[in-house]
Amino acid sequence: MNLRMMRKNREFLLVLFLVAFILFYFITSRTSDDPYYSSRRGKFRSGDDDEIDRPRQLAVQADDGYNRTSPFIFIGGVPRSGTTLMRAMLDAHPDVRCGEETRVIPRILNLRSQWKKSEKEWNRLQQAGVTGEVINNAISSFIMEVIVGHGDRAPRLCNKDPFTMKSAVYLKELFPNAKYLLMIRDGRATVNSIISRKVTITGFDLNDFRQCMTKWNAAIQIMVDQCESVGANCLKVYYEQLVLHPEAQMRRITEFLDVPWDDRVLHHEQLIGKDISLSNVERSSDQVVKPVNLDALSKWVGTIPEDVVRDMDSVAPMLRRLGYDPNANPPNYGKPDELVAKKTEDVHKNGVEWYKKAVQVVNDPERVDKPIVDSEAAAGRD
Amino acid sequence: MNLRMMRKNREFLLVLFLVAFILFYFITSRTSDDPYYSSRRGKFRSGDDDEIDRPRQLAVQADDGYNRTSPFIFIGGVPRSGTTLMRAMLDAHPDVRCGEETRVIPRILNLRSQWKKSEKEWNRLQQAGVTGEVINNAISSFIMEVIVGHGDRAPRLCNKDPFTMKSAVYLKELFPNAKYLLMIRDGRATVNSIISRKVTITGFDLNDFRQCMTKWNAAIQIMVDQCESVGANCLKVYYEQLVLHPEAQMRRITEFLDVPWDDRVLHHEQLIGKDISLSNVERSSDQVVKPVNLDALSKWVGTIPEDVVRDMDSVAPMLRRLGYDPNANPPNYGKPDELVAKKTEDVHKNGVEWYKKAVQVVNDPERVDKPIVDSEAAAGRD
Repeated sequence: MNLRMMRKNREFLLVLFLVAFILFYFITSRTSDDPYYSSRRGKFRSGDDDEIDRPRQLAVQADDGYNRTSPFIFIGGVPRSGTTLMRAMLDAHPDVRCGEETRVIPRILNLRSQWKKSEKEWNRLQQAGVTGEVINNAISSFIMEVIVGHGDRAPRLCNKDPFTMKSAVYLKELFPNAKYLLMIRDGRATVNSIISRKVTITGFDLNDFRQCMTKWNAAIQIMVDQCESVGANCLKVYYEQLVLHPEAQMRRITEFLDVPWDDRVLHHEQLIGKDISLSNVERSSDQVVKPVNLDALSKWVGTIPEDVVRDMDSVAPMLRRLGYDPNANPPNYGKPDELVAKKTEDVHKNGVEWYKKAVQVVNDPERVDKPIVDSEAAAGRD
Repeated sequence: MNLRMMRKNREFLLVLFLVAFILFYFITSRTSDDPYYSSRRGKFRSGDDDEIDRPRQLAVQADDGYNRTSPFIFIGGVPRSGTTLMRAMLDAHPDVRCGEETRVIPRILNLRSQWKKSEKEWNRLQQAGVTGEVINNAISSFIMEVIVGHGDRAPRLCNKDPFTMKSAVYLKELFPNAKYLLMIRDGRATVNSIISRKVTITGFDLNDFRQCMTKWNAAIQIMVDQCESVGANCLKVYYEQLVLHPEAQMRRITEFLDVPWDDRVLHHEQLIGKDISLSNVERSSDQVVKPVNLDALSKWVGTIPEDVVRDMDSVAPMLRRLGYDPNANPPNYGKPDELVAKKTEDVHKNGVEWYKKAVQVVNDPERVDKPIVDSEAAAGRD
């Protein structure tokens, strides 16, 4: 064989090898998923392959990038404390998706907490091989499937179910790289909102302002403890500061979340129905349709029974602890930035148009605040 | 450039391309799991990588072979109907692993069933993007994590939680290739076992045989309906037939499950603590420590209040429907195979040894049946 033929052979072999390698690559890139063939005792009959149904795939695939190390964002707080505003503003960010309250995530966290509380039950589970870590894997899989599956994908997925904040320490065990935003609001405004809007929350007696303040106090205390136990990964966000100084607060929040700045977070109202999905049965949808504004800050003043106003500090000691003067009706929350003052003006000037938008996003138009024609005609609801 | 140089270049390029392709293959075969870098808007700072915790991996990995198409085995029935015996005998098979009752799987199925029952709630969930399919993925992930994680791996994983049979149709939606074994037993024996062993089951009044028969009747009716709705993938197994004719029944069952025959399923007592894991708080552990035997067939006779015996057919119409003569105390279930007659003899002859083994596998030795020294001294418990 002369040199020329040898070279031709060599080229031929190289091309052959290349083709073979390319084929090998494509063949091995299909995921094998049939356990029948990994048995300890040889092959099984695979049954009737034609009849094997293939249900829609799990939302969370191993190569998706979503797993327990993912840096999920959890937003929580007592309901009516600005949690929806917070998630709507973050939803406006191109890289973040929160979406609606899932409703089911707090319930499964609650189930787990019942099991843990009962020593007898926890032991029975251990005996069954259902250890804490098996439960953690099961619950985190459930949570991830819901978070990932109930909306569009995004680089940073976020979940807002207010009461998840009661389980922040446990969530940190499930998702060590997750970050938490605890929404804090003047309890008097929160309770006024619950009562005036008739928002049913287990344990809250809507006929009793004092009782609701007590419940708010207990709830926010637990949430603050959880947030502080989580430590550096939990940020407290004051609703009043968010609406008075949206840019400074959002810069602080995006920095905390490791998300690059984007102006859109200050104009979420432009993205309703686009980047921001609203549920027509959620109680704040009609409010977040509007730009961030000052209207809900102090509407609570004058709505509290006299005796409760008088006893406020002892009824709700968390107010003082959180920095709210329990005897100031209202406290001076601060002076608004020009941005939000302008947006508020726009909401008032174009009250009818904003009202129409609000009505479109709810199933029950009756509950939407009528436009404020005269600022003194404000109904006292926030 | 002359031909020789061109050929050299071509070879060189081929080698380069091959090397490049090989490198490409190895680089892309590492699973990318950092969503930060798949953002729509360029890279994010990945934060402090040194501090990223890596919790123990999920039990169910995509390349594990376990997913919604897996042919899981579900064993169910009214408690005290032989469900533990069934799972213990299957556990004896080298390719099958059931393990203990997980306790949590029925609870999550129950949660889902509450959501589905309430039209209002189901609609709220849809509005939130938490569709039926999102829920299905979340719940099946939870279930798989528990089934896979609470025991050893095996080619065929199996779960025994009695009340899952009430959700067999839904489970079929989650796992279309799963198979179901419904344990059926003479309700009079089941209720006698519940009452004499004081087994607490929600809704059963242990002081009222009649009420318990009614509850048994309602429960078994639902389960039979579910099993029949599932269709070909659900097999009804009569406890009495299983203990009288273990080999014929186990051959029928392994055939149904697509699992090769193995004699070990007839001698599960030899594998306690090895292939078979028992929970010391489960109510049948002390019984399945023994070989399959006839002792529990008719102990119920004479334990039922006269008036209930008289009204039995109307109290529990499912007896007749399932083939049990409601007026025969007891019915003639059949003649035992020699295998089980021998094992029963062994249990009686070596009562003390078997009692000692039974005591070792429970947390409360008081509840273990004392050895039968004289067959007439049988306490009437099964």
